[in-house]
Amino acid sequence: MIFYYALNSVSVAAHIALYEAGLAFESRRIDFSKSEQRGPDYLNINTKGRVPALETEQGIITETPAILVYIAQLAPAAGLAPLDDPFEFARMQAFNMYLCATVHVAHAHKHRGSRWADDPAAIEAMKQKVSSNMRDCFTLIEREMFVGPWVLGRQYSVADIYLYTVSRWLPGDGVDLAEFPVIAEHHRRMSQKAAVQKVLEIYEAAS
Amino acid sequence: MIFYYALNSVSVAAHIALYEAGLAFESRRIDFSKSEQRGPDYLNINTKGRVPALETEQGIITETPAILVYIAQLAPAAGLAPLDDPFEFARMQAFNMYLCATVHVAHAHKHRGSRWADDPAAIEAMKQKVSSNMRDCFTLIEREMFVGPWVLGRQYSVADIYLYTVSRWLPGDGVDLAEFPVIAEHHRRMSQKAAVQKVLEIYEAAS
Repeated sequence: MIFYYALNSVSVAAHIALYEAGLAFESRRIDFSKSEQRGPDYLNINTKGRVPALETEQGIITETPAILVYIAQLAPAAGLAPLDDPFEFARMQAFNMYLCATVHVAHAHKHRGSRWADDPAAIEAMKQKVSSNMRDCFTLIEREMFVGPWVLGRQYSVADIYLYTVSRWLPGDGVDLAEFPVIAEHHRRMSQKAAVQKVLEIYEAAS
Repeated sequence: MIFYYALNSVSVAAHIALYEAGLAFESRRIDFSKSEQRGPDYLNINTKGRVPALETEQGIITETPAILVYIAQLAPAAGLAPLDDPFEFARMQAFNMYLCATVHVAHAHKHRGSRWADDPAAIEAMKQKVSSNMRDCFTLIEREMFVGPWVLGRQYSVADIYLYTVSRWLPGDGVDLAEFPVIAEHHRRMSQKAAVQKVLEIYEAAS
């Protein structure tokens, strides 16, 4: 398999999951500073011009929640998802969807406002609301969604990897992780995992 | 099971899937015109104050892509998802994620701009871009993502139900479905399905 990623992007999540799963893969960095995600070579991989993408023998998979579940299914022994319990699987999926379609979207209004408006003043107005939106999202996760000790409860899953990845964005979005003691403690535990340290080393070496 | 829905919302998708699956369920309408989605009763069901939500004996599931897969898993004989092929399942999930996190989000900037900015001029600027964003999304689906005769190819799936649901928003967003002949033909075939007609009748009777 070939994994396409970019520095400081959501591709961190699938990258960690690949190492956690113990799967063999090559990785190819897409350099956003050179707009490689919009070049013809990469658009052939992912017509949406985004990372991550995972090239398999059967074809290409995009979208973080889809890739995370695929990795978990490819390596069931790694125990990265409640694959045999439709309700628990749905709970995990719902959590991942919230990160994907609400939290990531809230964060994206800081640097990607031009997706949703052309007026520079409107794009600036979106930036102004990112901090409070991210705080609201993490308040909901902290108080209502996170079961503990892991996102789903006793079962560790790719939802933990995804939450860790998105929570790394908080300082840059003007939110102190310490406002959320449960998530901060989860973040600390996640950062000690070998797969997480491996990915952070790769990203730091390339920065 | 109890299915919570609202008129003219994305809950149409899970509603159709429930009928397609032949599952027994009760339904409860949440009246957005009375802000029932923000009332304490419904916030106990879904703390995010959104529809759909599906109450099962084990607990509550939210987020359309998670509910759709849960329904498909509960009724495997209905053949609503490629449950035994991780790659095809991931392709379906990626399509559903695109509808959820990109297309639905593009559409939401018409009526829900206040989520992402406080300035009325910025909210108005977001509205102005909805048409062209929806057109871009459907161009990508028409040209690059839709395999035919169904979204994934020969296998019909919940991705078809979800696409049908989201494509119903196009006229209101100022986009003519006829610009996309492949999706328009798919829409026509979907609208003839008994499960679709059943849900449309429910919604029309309540409007």
